[in-house]
Order: sequence, then C-alpha cells, then structure tokens
Amino acid sequence: MEPNSSSNDNNKMQLQHHSSCLEIATMEVHRVVPPRHKSTIEKLKTRLKETFFPDDPLRQFKGQPLGKKWILAAQYIFPILEWGPNYSFKLFKSDIISGLTIASLAIPQGISYAKLANLPPIVGLYSSFVPPLVYTVLGSSRDLAVGPVSIASLIMGSMLRQEVSPTQNPVLFLQLAFTATFFGGLVQASLGLLRLGFIIDFLSKATLIGFMAGAAIIVSLQQLKSLLGITHFTNQMGLIPVMSSVFHNTKEWSWQTILMGFCFLVFLLLTRHVGTKRPKLFWVSAGAPLVSVILSTLLVFAFKAQHHGISVIGKLQEGLNPPSWNMLKFHGSHLGLVMKTGLITGIISLTEGIAVGRTFAALKNYQVDGNKEMIAIGVMNIVGSSTSCYITTGAFSRSAVNHNAGAKTAVSNVVMSVTVMVTLLFLMPLFQYTPNVVLGAIIVTAVVGLIDVPAAHQIWKIDKFDFLVMLCAFLGVIFISVQEGLAIAVGISIFKILLQITRPKTVMLGNMPGSDIYRDLHHYNEAMRIPGFLILSIEAPINFANTTYLNERILRWIEEYEAEENLNKQSSLRFVILEMSAVSAIDTSGTSFFKDLRKAMEKKGLVLVNPLAEVLEKLQRSDDSGDFKRPDSLYLTVGEAVASLSSTIKAPSANYV
Amino acid sequence: MEPNSSSNDNNKMQLQHHSSCLEIATMEVHRVVPPRHKSTIEKLKTRLKETFFPDDPLRQFKGQPLGKKWILAAQYIFPILEWGPNYSFKLFKSDIISGLTIASLAIPQGISYAKLANLPPIVGLYSSFVPPLVYTVLGSSRDLAVGPVSIASLIMGSMLRQEVSPTQNPVLFLQLAFTATFFGGLVQASLGLLRLGFIIDFLSKATLIGFMAGAAIIVSLQQLKSLLGITHFTNQMGLIPVMSSVFHNTKEWSWQTILMGFCFLVFLLLTRHVGTKRPKLFWVSAGAPLVSVILSTLLVFAFKAQHHGISVIGKLQEGLNPPSWNMLKFHGSHLGLVMKTGLITGIISLTEGIAVGRTFAALKNYQVDGNKEMIAIGVMNIVGSSTSCYITTGAFSRSAVNHNAGAKTAVSNVVMSVTVMVTLLFLMPLFQYTPNVVLGAIIVTAVVGLIDVPAAHQIWKIDKFDFLVMLCAFLGVIFISVQEGLAIAVGISIFKILLQITRPKTVMLGNMPGSDIYRDLHHYNEAMRIPGFLILSIEAPINFANTTYLNERILRWIEEYEAEENLNKQSSLRFVILEMSAVSAIDTSGTSFFKDLRKAMEKKGLVLVNPLAEVLEKLQRSDDSGDFKRPDSLYLTVGEAVASLSSTIKAPSANYV
Repeated sequence: MEPNSSSNDNNKMQLQHHSSCLEIATMEVHRVVPPRHKSTIEKLKTRLKETFFPDDPLRQFKGQPLGKKWILAAQYIFPILEWGPNYSFKLFKSDIISGLTIASLAIPQGISYAKLANLPPIVGLYSSFVPPLVYTVLGSSRDLAVGPVSIASLIMGSMLRQEVSPTQNPVLFLQLAFTATFFGGLVQASLGLLRLGFIIDFLSKATLIGFMAGAAIIVSLQQLKSLLGITHFTNQMGLIPVMSSVFHNTKEWSWQTILMGFCFLVFLLLTRHVGTKRPKLFWVSAGAPLVSVILSTLLVFAFKAQHHGISVIGKLQEGLNPPSWNMLKFHGSHLGLVMKTGLITGIISLTEGIAVGRTFAALKNYQVDGNKEMIAIGVMNIVGSSTSCYITTGAFSRSAVNHNAGAKTAVSNVVMSVTVMVTLLFLMPLFQYTPNVVLGAIIVTAVVGLIDVPAAHQIWKIDKFDFLVMLCAFLGVIFISVQEGLAIAVGISIFKILLQITRPKTVMLGNMPGSDIYRDLHHYNEAMRIPGFLILSIEAPINFANTTYLNERILRWIEEYEAEENLNKQSSLRFVILEMSAVSAIDTSGTSFFKDLRKAMEKKGLVLVNPLAEVLEKLQRSDDSGDFKRPDSLYLTVGEAVASLSSTIKAPSANYV
Repeated sequence: MEPNSSSNDNNKMQLQHHSSCLEIATMEVHRVVPPRHKSTIEKLKTRLKETFFPDDPLRQFKGQPLGKKWILAAQYIFPILEWGPNYSFKLFKSDIISGLTIASLAIPQGISYAKLANLPPIVGLYSSFVPPLVYTVLGSSRDLAVGPVSIASLIMGSMLRQEVSPTQNPVLFLQLAFTATFFGGLVQASLGLLRLGFIIDFLSKATLIGFMAGAAIIVSLQQLKSLLGITHFTNQMGLIPVMSSVFHNTKEWSWQTILMGFCFLVFLLLTRHVGTKRPKLFWVSAGAPLVSVILSTLLVFAFKAQHHGISVIGKLQEGLNPPSWNMLKFHGSHLGLVMKTGLITGIISLTEGIAVGRTFAALKNYQVDGNKEMIAIGVMNIVGSSTSCYITTGAFSRSAVNHNAGAKTAVSNVVMSVTVMVTLLFLMPLFQYTPNVVLGAIIVTAVVGLIDVPAAHQIWKIDKFDFLVMLCAFLGVIFISVQEGLAIAVGISIFKILLQITRPKTVMLGNMPGSDIYRDLHHYNEAMRIPGFLILSIEAPINFANTTYLNERILRWIEEYEAEENLNKQSSLRFVILEMSAVSAIDTSGTSFFKDLRKAMEKKGLVLVNPLAEVLEKLQRSDDSGDFKRPDSLYLTVGEAVASLSSTIKAPSANYV
C-alpha cells in the first residue's frame, strides 16, 4: 500500500518523475509487461465463476468450523432459519396488520385474476393459500406479497385457450393450467439452480414498461365483457377483435350493469388515487376492493339484481385446496403448448417477482439473492401445481401495500394465508351473489397502475432507441399478441446490442494542451492533433462481427489523414496509435485483423497502447513475427507513446523509415 | 495544430504544468465539459451513416462538376468503365493465359459440381458461361474466377431433395433449382443495396473453418457412390447413413471402378500437392483435372469399359444456354423450401465470394467494396437463373489458380467463358464416355483443400472458445445437417458476444508508482492501491443486460474492501472512482443503474472519470439531482480525480463526511 497520497506528495512525485525525464533527454517509459501465465483450466475457472457465481454465494462459509458450516448451509437454503429465531412479538404486531391488509386485497384479486385466466374463481383463492406459506420458508425478501398476478394470469388463460376451450372442456383446461404451472415452476427453479438468472435481465426496463402498459390495456379491454354485461364476447385478445365485439353486441349492453360498474370503478379509482398520493392512507386503497365486494354483494342480495341483468359469480365450492398431482398431464397432444405456456408464464412471473423483491430490498437497504429467489418462487409453483394452485409470484401492487402497511418479515404472508384459509373454510357462500362487474372494476383498477406514463416520458427524454423498443412492445402486445409483442421487443433489444458490437465506436484522440492527457477530438475542442500521428481509441471487444468494419474504418481514417496532409502540406503520417484500454476481449478474427492491418499499413508504424492482459496474451501468441513483443509497438499510455516515438522521427536511426 | 511535438518540448510542457500545480497547492484539474448539443435528427443521421455507410461510398463525388459526377456514377455502377479504357494488349496476354488455365479447371469442375447438386452435368457448364460475363461488367475484384462451387452445390442439392426427387421428377427439380438461384441472387443483391453486408460478418472465421471442413467431408463421402461404383446409394448426407449405405452394399462395389478411381485420385492429389508447394507450377494442378477427364474418357472408349461396370456420363445436349425464365416458379407448395434454399445458398456463396475477393485484394493491395460486390454477385445470379444457370460465386480454388496464372483483370473470366462456349457448341459429344468415377475424384481433390488443419490448430492455440465454435460447426455438419451445423455455430458465436455483454469485464486499477498512470492491479504487480479509494474501470457499454450484474459486482467489491479495511485497520473507503473511458454507450437501464448505485453507496462519493460524450449527455439528462454535473464527481483522468479528492479528505471542509 502506498503510505500516503495527499495532493502535495503526489505532485512532488510526478514532478520528480518528469524532471528526471528531462534529464535523460528521452522520457522514461513504462513497459507493457505480458500478464502472468495462467493455464486454460485456471482461465476457465475464473470465467465460469464470473459468469455463474458473480455474487460468490459461498464466501460466508470460508474459514468457518464444520458445525457452523452446517448451520450456515441450512440458513442458506431456508432463510426462515436466519430471521426466525430472532422473531419477536413486536415484529408480529406489524406483520399481523399488514397481513390482514393484504388479505383484504388478495381475496377479491384472487377471484378476479382466476377469472382472467379462465379458471374457476376458487382456484384464485387456493393460489393465495399454499404458495405464500412455501415462500415464507424459502424466500429471502421481507416485503414480497405472494399470489396470482394479472399478467401471468392473462397469458396463461390466452395461451391455453388456443387449443382447449375453458367452457366446453373445463376439466382438461384446469389440468393443463396445473401442468403449465408445474413447468413454469420447474423453469424458474432450474434457472436459479443453474445460476442462469441473468436470462431475465434480457427483459430491459424499457421493454417491460411497454409490455406492462400493453398488457394492462389488453386486460382492461377483456373486462368490458363484465363491465358492459355482454354475454357473447370474443375469445380473442387483440384491440381490434375486442372493440368490434363490443360494438357489434350493443344490444346486449345492460344499463344496470354499466351503472353499477361505473359507480364502483369511480370509487375504486378515487381510493387508489388517495392511496398513491398519501402512502399513510394506504388502507383506503387496500380495503376498497373488499368494501366494494361486500357492498355490491349486499346490493345484489337486497334488490335481487341477479334477475335484472346483473350476472353474479354463483355457488362456490367450500373447503381447502384439494390435491391435484393426479391432474398433471405429462403426455398427450397438448404437451407442447403446456410446456411453452409454462416457459413464458414462468419467465414473465419470475421477472415480476424478482423486480419487486429487488425494488423493496433497495428501499430498505438489504440484499436479495436473485438465484435463491428464483429457486424459492420455482419450488412454490411446483408445490402449488399439486395443490390446486396456478402460477403465482410476488405481485407489485400487493407488495407495495404490504410495505406501506409496515410488514417486517414474510410472516405477513402467513397471516394473509391464514385469513384466506378461514375464507375458504367458512365464508365462501357469501360470494354467491357477488356481481362479476365489480370483479371487472377491481381488475381494471389494479392494472391501471401498470401504465407508467412518466417513466415512458423519461425514456423518451434519455434514449430514443429505448423508447422505440418500448413502443414496439406496447403496440405488439395490443395489436398482435402478448407473447409476440414481448418477443419482438426482446429481439430488437438484442439486435441493438449486436449492432453496437458490429459498429463499435472508434474515437480519434487529441492532446489536451499542457498535459499528457489524450481525449476525444470531437468532444473536447481544446484537444489538438499531433502531426504525424493518428491516435484512435477502439471502444469495443474486437471479434468476428466487427473486424471487417474496423479494418475498413481505420484504413479510411488513414486515407483521410493523407488526403488532408497533401492539401495542407503537413508532416506525413508516421504512426497509427491504437488505444486499447476499452478492448475487453479479442477472438481469432481479431488477432488476424491486427495482422492484416499491419500488412495494409506498409511503412507506417502500428502502436498499441495499454492492451488488457487477456488481449495482449492472445495477440502475442498469434503473432509469429514478434511485432507485438517489440517495446516500440507497445506502450502503457498514449502520452508516453507519442513522446517516445516523436524522438524516433527526429533521430536519424529511426526504426520506421 | 500543435506547432511542434518533439519529445523535449513535450516534457517541458508537462513540467511547466506540474510545477504550476505545485505552486497553487491543489492540482490544476481539467474540467469534463458537456458535449456540444446535437438534435435527435443529427444523431440519427450520424448513427445511420456509421451503420450503413461506414465506407462513405460517395466521398469521391464531393466537389466534382456535374459531368464528371455522371462519369463517376457510371464507373461506380459498372467498374468495367473504370479499368476498361486503360486496357492494353499486354494485360490481355496475361489474362488469356490465366483464362485458359481456369477454363481447363472450370469445365471438369462444372460438370462435377452440377452432379453434386443433382442437376444435369450440362447445367454446370451453362453456369460457367453466362455468370462470368456478368461479373466482368459489374465486379470490382481483379482475381475472382466465377462459377459453381462445391458447398453451395451440395447445400442446394440436399435441401431441394428434401421435397422433390431429382431422378423421379427431374424437370420440377430443375425448375426449383433455378427459382432458388433467383431468390439467392435477390437476397445477395438486396443485402448489397440495403447495405446490410455486415450480416455475413456473423459467420466468423472459426465457424467457417469448421463448417468448410465438415462440408468437405460430407461432399467426399457422397463421392463414395461414384468412387466405389455403388448404384443403390442413400439419399441422406450424414456420416452415419452414408457409411452404413456403403457397407451394406459391398456386393455392388466394382473393382474396375475402384481401381480407376484410386489411380486418378492419387494422380490428382499428387499434382495438387505439387501445385500448393510450388506456386510457379500452378499449371500442373490446374491442368490435371482436364488431363484426367481426357485420359479416362480415352480409356473407357478404348476398352469399352462402360460395359464392364464403369458408369459414364452418357449423351449430353449440345448448344448454348437456353432461356429459363419460363421455368421460374413463384407459386405452388414448394415455394417456402425454395425461398429457404435461396436464402441459405445465397448467403453461403456470398460469404465465399466476398472472402475470396477480399483475400486477393489484400494480396495485391487494392480495395474491394463489399456492398458493391454483393450487388454484382446478386445480379449475376438473377441473370443466371433465367439463362439456365444455378447458383455461382467466386470460387476459392479457381481464383487462386487465376491469381497464380497471372490474371490482371476480370477479362480472364471472359476468356474462360468463351472457352466454355466453344466447348458447349462443339465439344460436348466428347464427354459421352467420361466415367463418373473421375468426376468423383476431381470433387474429392477440390474439397480436400477446404480442410484447414493448421488454421484449426492456430485457433486452438489462441482462443479455446473459438475452437469450440469451430468444433460445433464441424460436428454439426457431419452428424446433423449442413444447415443446422451452421446455425448452431452462429448461435454459439452470438451467445458468446451476448455473454460478454452480460458479464462485462471490470478491472480494479492501481497507481503505477512515480506517475499518475492507473492500471490493472492484477496485470501490473507494481501498481498500488490508494487507501480510501476504490478505482474500477468498466469495460463494456452499460445496458439492460448487465446493470444487475454490475450493481451486484460493484457492491461486492465495496464490501470486500470494507472487510479488508476492518482486518487491516486501514483508512476507510471514501470514494469509488469509475473509469468510464471504455463505456461506449448507455441506455435507460444504465442511467438508473447509476442512480441506484449512488443511493446504495450512502456516504461514499461516486466519481466518474472521462465519460464519453454520448454517455455523459444521457447521464446528465436523466439526473434530476444534478449530481453528475458537480465538478467534484466528474474528472478527466483518474490521476486528477485522486489528487483532487485526496485534498478534500484532509481538508476540514470536506464535501463527503
């Protein structure tokens, strides 16, 4: 360690350094040393570790005695063992309040989302009972409120409906839903176990904002069926078929339903507005759906409105989740569709769950281990699929309520789960007269929050290309289909990355006067070109996708320099300096690129500045002529290269003539 | 421009700079200025230009009078107008020799490759007559010898055979081949016109080496049919079905054929060996196939060997290419297959043509415009498809012979074309007794050169991952299929690039003693950490695919620093400096990453060094708090940042406490 680094000492040191340079006439030059030799196995190990274990999950185990290691391992697998022993009554008081609050939200939402997935309403409640209990044991987030969510419900419902009708063949549809949930959980747990969590990173923020907004609109449009009381509604999801279905069935519109829907929608949206503006009044928006359900049920019961054009849920089964492992179908003609549905809903719901977990972890300043969360969510869905639950994850709206209501640990999920259990056992008959229109209003209110206009505006301000990606996701979801819209947006995002690699930025550097700093000539107006030198900084890994471009681009730069040189009669180009600090990797196409470039440049010198260890090693290994081992073609900084090479231009014994 | 930059003056300047620093106690610090404002349209224009016109093809038109512009435009479209007027008898003498040489190679190869594509042998000669003439007018390479090539022939034959049998339905098969050629030409010309030539860059050198070697083996295996004289041969291409077909039909093996094939194969391989070892004796290997054809035909004729188990070509049509535009089929059930075949053969043959053109251009030090070449090859195939030609391109082996024989311009293609014409008109009856076994031997000899073991060894030495890609292409082609092997290799190459983006290299920097240079601590052992500072260099664009990783990785680094700090009781971490020179781009996920990071770092200072213009602009636009506009969070070099911030640590009025 350097003993001190105060400004004065630093300057003295530099002064000393530079005055010594002056004394010995040519500058003291730092050698670029070849990196320490590493075997292929060593390199592979480092690479694999950085790729799959960047968070070094086992670092806490290092240097611990064996007994302690066992305890740590158990805590690692079951995070409940970490916080459970310190759980206190004080924490429980906070958790019970938040748990009851999210339960009042979860019950109406569970029923509504199950309908969105074309499943019996009770499956939504089943799915709010078992999965939260599993998550409490395995999950590492303290704020996540687990249950069915709107977008995954929508996707599962619409994908499965492609092959099986939920009205004509409800049992098969339910079987496929459970099987898809099983595959979804399997995908989620596998991503976590194989430490491939980075796959969900390919859904960028911009993609998600566009996708969510599109899905919210699709979900809301579906609710027009219950909000307007239409009985013959289209099975398709797109904007155009839904709107044409709405306006071709104007005769079926029921004014009683519309009036009731409108009133409750206004009520719910108003309470939602209060809840978002004043986080302290979170209970207003959290309780509103349950209040609406109770109020509307009483209204229907009192006025016998079910006979006046208002459709109701009808009789619901009582009792806890029946086992459903015998309903999983791993063969038959629908297996392909079920696996695809599981894959897509699994990844989408995983993305939501992880994003929500990370958001609240960042707010309370604790860490959530992404891969561990994936395993927790995955196991939760695998268990769910054999206990009559469909796909669940951490829901944003419910977790926000949970957080605002003061949840301290995952025990709030247990409280919610127990409340749902009580409902399942004793309160189901009460929902018999709940009108569907109120469920529609609850869904619309819940998904409206997914349309994030300020974020879209912010993206427009910062990055037009990201905005384009967002727009593609949005329009794709609305006009084509939920899955294809998402696929298009992901495709465009990846294409942009590939384009950045194919056309890497190359910057021409100039000297900042009065220093040995070299910076972008186009950015810093005071930066000056050094006659006889072309100094380029390559800003990307050099590989097969860009060597052709780089070769042509650099040769054109040389040509332009020479054209200008003839015009202005300035000193001729002698050295091309490539600043390589930003070239993080190179492949065999890249190494041939340097050979070709050196050949094409004929008598001009090609000088590399600060190649990274890995790049330098590959260049030297591929270089039979030894050109990249000569000290006059390798420098540590541009300043040293220019200073040192300038002297060779002047000196009669110049290397390059 | 700086007036002079000799080493001495440079040093003086630096000395002056640093001594002035010493006087004013704190160092003189260069400001990071925001870049000049550019409108979105301006930025889009620059971006589009760099993406699609990196070679600035219209630069020669600038500032020319109108008449001259027209001439330049005509020359741009028809390169023949550029070199044609200066064509001399001396050049012609060279071209006629090389043209006759490649004709002697082209005639037997044309017949053989057509058989490889399951087409009538004469189509191979047709394809060596028209396309070279078209290329002479449009092409810009001086060495390319145009005609059918082995790999494209193989792929076209095997793909079309999936749906139509060439023996049972030869006319339909021929129609599909011409139509596929038309689509191939269309794809090629479109890639050139739309300036999307970089798409072929995604076939990396490693992929191509593996693919070529695999294809060479597949092609050679197919020749076992004629080399062994088997009549009932499999229709499949893979290693396993071919070998099982060979050994299940041992009864059909004909010793006469085997003997003849063996003799000619040895003769051809020997002459090939001579040709490659001594480029001056190129005519030995160039003439050998024709000699073999003549010799073997005479042998068959003399011994009436066609009655003794040696199969011969049989009667061939005489006359020039008949028009075939009426044979193009743009409808019907095979359209999808034909378009796919056109796409794949088009891209593969384009890759070969462009690579060959570039290779010889680099040898003779002239430039080949990739996009223009694509248009030339594309038009050549479109014209070819309506004059009874199938897919053609610049062939490597024939171009090498052309080059060695001293070709000066594309006129050598005209000479070859005329020779083929004479053959078509008058010499076709001579081929009646040519035995198929000799054609098989010619193909094997031609494709053996595609197996490049030294290149594979070189790749193994330099880059293990590239070797893996190569191996996948090779094994995929041999065991699965030609197209799928290629697709797998391209997929893996792109996956590697994406992985590099997802897990960007991040390097910890230290101070090189006695200087203000900061370099990789793991590469330079003398580099020293500065207590209180964590200096990281991020080596990739920051985008949605890597923000999660970067966030976790940087926080872990901070954690590790603090753990060590407690152990060694060194001064606590005060500043995290991110060297941003290598961050070539950023998106909206990237800008939020910086916000989150700043929040997570609490009281430690986050300092950026040398962000590029575009990155700085986006950061400042997304930053409502103005943190990235404060001069104490933006520096031009790490040295200046450390020097300047060290003083704030010591001073009582420090900013970050």
